Amino acid sequence: MSSDFANLPLRDDLRGETPYGAPQLDIPVCLNVNENPYAPPKSVADAIAKRAGAAALKLNRYPDREHVALRDALAGYINAETDAGIKREQVWAANGSNEIMLQLFQAFGGPGKTALGFSPTYSMYPEYARDTFTKWKTVSRREDFTIDTDSAVEEIRRIGPSVVMIANPNNPTGTYIENDDLRVLLDVCKEVRVKNAPESARPVVVVDEAYAEFRTPGLESAISLIGEYPNLAVSRTMSKAFAFAGTRLGYLIGNENVVNALRIVRLPYHLSALTQAASLAALEHSGELLAQVSHLRETRDKTEKWFKTLQYCGRPIKNAESESNFIMFGVFTDRDFIFDELKKRGVLIRAVGPEGYLRVCMGTDEEMRIFREKFAEVLQLANERDGK
Amino acid sequence: MSSDFANLPLRDDLRGETPYGAPQLDIPVCLNVNENPYAPPKSVADAIAKRAGAAALKLNRYPDREHVALRDALAGYINAETDAGIKREQVWAANGSNEIMLQLFQAFGGPGKTALGFSPTYSMYPEYARDTFTKWKTVSRREDFTIDTDSAVEEIRRIGPSVVMIANPNNPTGTYIENDDLRVLLDVCKEVRVKNAPESARPVVVVDEAYAEFRTPGLESAISLIGEYPNLAVSRTMSKAFAFAGTRLGYLIGNENVVNALRIVRLPYHLSALTQAASLAALEHSGELLAQVSHLRETRDKTEKWFKTLQYCGRPIKNAESESNFIMFGVFTDRDFIFDELKKRGVLIRAVGPEGYLRVCMGTDEEMRIFREKFAEVLQLANERDGK
Repeated sequence: MSSDFANLPLRDDLRGETPYGAPQLDIPVCLNVNENPYAPPKSVADAIAKRAGAAALKLNRYPDREHVALRDALAGYINAETDAGIKREQVWAANGSNEIMLQLFQAFGGPGKTALGFSPTYSMYPEYARDTFTKWKTVSRREDFTIDTDSAVEEIRRIGPSVVMIANPNNPTGTYIENDDLRVLLDVCKEVRVKNAPESARPVVVVDEAYAEFRTPGLESAISLIGEYPNLAVSRTMSKAFAFAGTRLGYLIGNENVVNALRIVRLPYHLSALTQAASLAALEHSGELLAQVSHLRETRDKTEKWFKTLQYCGRPIKNAESESNFIMFGVFTDRDFIFDELKKRGVLIRAVGPEGYLRVCMGTDEEMRIFREKFAEVLQLANERDGK
Repeated sequence: MSSDFANLPLRDDLRGETPYGAPQLDIPVCLNVNENPYAPPKSVADAIAKRAGAAALKLNRYPDREHVALRDALAGYINAETDAGIKREQVWAANGSNEIMLQLFQAFGGPGKTALGFSPTYSMYPEYARDTFTKWKTVSRREDFTIDTDSAVEEIRRIGPSVVMIANPNNPTGTYIENDDLRVLLDVCKEVRVKNAPESARPVVVVDEAYAEFRTPGLESAISLIGEYPNLAVSRTMSKAFAFAGTRLGYLIGNENVVNALRIVRLPYHLSALTQAASLAALEHSGELLAQVSHLRETRDKTEKWFKTLQYCGRPIKNAESESNFIMFGVFTDRDFIFDELKKRGVLIRAVGPEGYLRVCMGTDEEMRIFREKFAEVLQLANERDGK
């Protein structure tokens, strides 16, 4: 994109910016955007088509602005996983968790407000901040990419953020924060005053559980803490485990007041009748759509073990402990070399995260076989190139 | 909605606000949100279901972020209507023109910037401004609700807005601005400096043609002016004439630089694979979906004539000259009385626009028969109540 914005009143802070997003390339093995590699089965596609066809007969009418049936179905799905007893009023859906986050930043961010994250973390967070004129600050994670609760508490106290963003599992590291540690942050947020807000205002803590379904069974979701913490909001998506990225359905579980704040800033009729229909069909078939999740978890565990058997420049390859469907690994002198050489061999991964790291998401068994084969080749090249 | 926002860091300017939107009520005759009352035919619904079913088999993958096929199809649709020779690079789609407008305000608005409209006009415009911290100013329309180009030019020069919003036909008045008058505003915008922007920046003129297909044949669209005016952006939607409100497909036709500016602020993958698939199917069947447009135009003309035969308090009922699928009429001492009495009788219209006015959108012949019957009843009550 080379554009001449001279005569347009483009915001100063957007000049020189480029559109966010991984390259969408036609490459045989795409392990770059953390999708579920297993397509929905034909039976589910048929159910979606049937629901879409029925909805199509009424498409001259606007959709249900409050998407009541979908919120009920999402509450049902969550209540089957946790025992939080979530009600419709505590659920809110939008076009991907992207839009959920934008709405959160629109409601609680803005000039004078700060959002705090834990770096390295999801690279869209600063964009939501930018788009809403919210200041974006980060606290560095520990060397193993977990959150250092001591320094987190200190920064929350010092900054008085209006939003605290915690991706869990974190992207791109895959690391997890357990509820005991989360409570430490939630507790401090119950006390801390938000800068440039009324005296009674406390930070909103957003736990982004986009990849929650991939966590090791037994690890708890933050959803079970919602009853205790009124300013806690948990975001989920159907884009990852659910094999439903194309539908763009993100949702939030939180207190009714948080949902009502989002209702003020949401665009009216933001969620199309087709999105609502397809998501309802998918939730009715959640078993089939989530069928590969445990296999993908095993694939991740096996791939982590495999990485540990490899050497780069005489040292084992490191990876962050992932509770997600991707693994961040490194540290390479020139990660772009490895990225490019893999791409030449028909394998697309992502150069993201701290310098020297790469991220690969879990594909099908065949895709992973190809990845391992090609990566072994490229690693040998890199070892020859970068010395040992 | 009664919410306790005390402990939430809700933006000050959102406190006390309520979610935007007409009531969604289960009432027999809904003439309140300017939908096309004719549902898509079964053949089109089937085509949509087929396309959705095919897309569903790949829903584990993210959609085409650049929605290339859809932009090509939209360009084809526009080029069949105008001779503007629109290319893919000049087209951009989003979830309803709502999202198009939000993206425009995100790119070109913000603190220090002003958007200028012509009141009365579409009541979402100040919300896009609010959501992006843009100042919203208006110039009053003439008594017949057309734009007074002299005072418009004066205000544009005085304010130096970054965005000029012109709904055409205007909502809720239905009035039209012809291209000769539009040129006057576009010409001044070629000269005027935007306040709080680089010296070379000129205002972006957004012509919101949501209802364009309902205009009298022969009236020109602003799309034919895009070649001459680089900062002109025309927004369209499939929600109205296209009988496709449930799908939420809005789009913008403009210069490539305007599109590229929106690409910076758009959320990645904002347009779902199902929205893209269904819209492609609809565009392939545009003839069937638009089949009722000329009939709705006749309905509007007949209804305008009918209004002129009615008396309220000894004077004829007035209506703005509509080029849309709705009519704004008045002036009533107590418009809410008429709104409520119609609602009691199973007819939902909208109390919107200047004090004393109501807006009704064109329904099916049967719906309009019921509207006329019930309105005549209610008008008699109002005449008895408000004296003559």
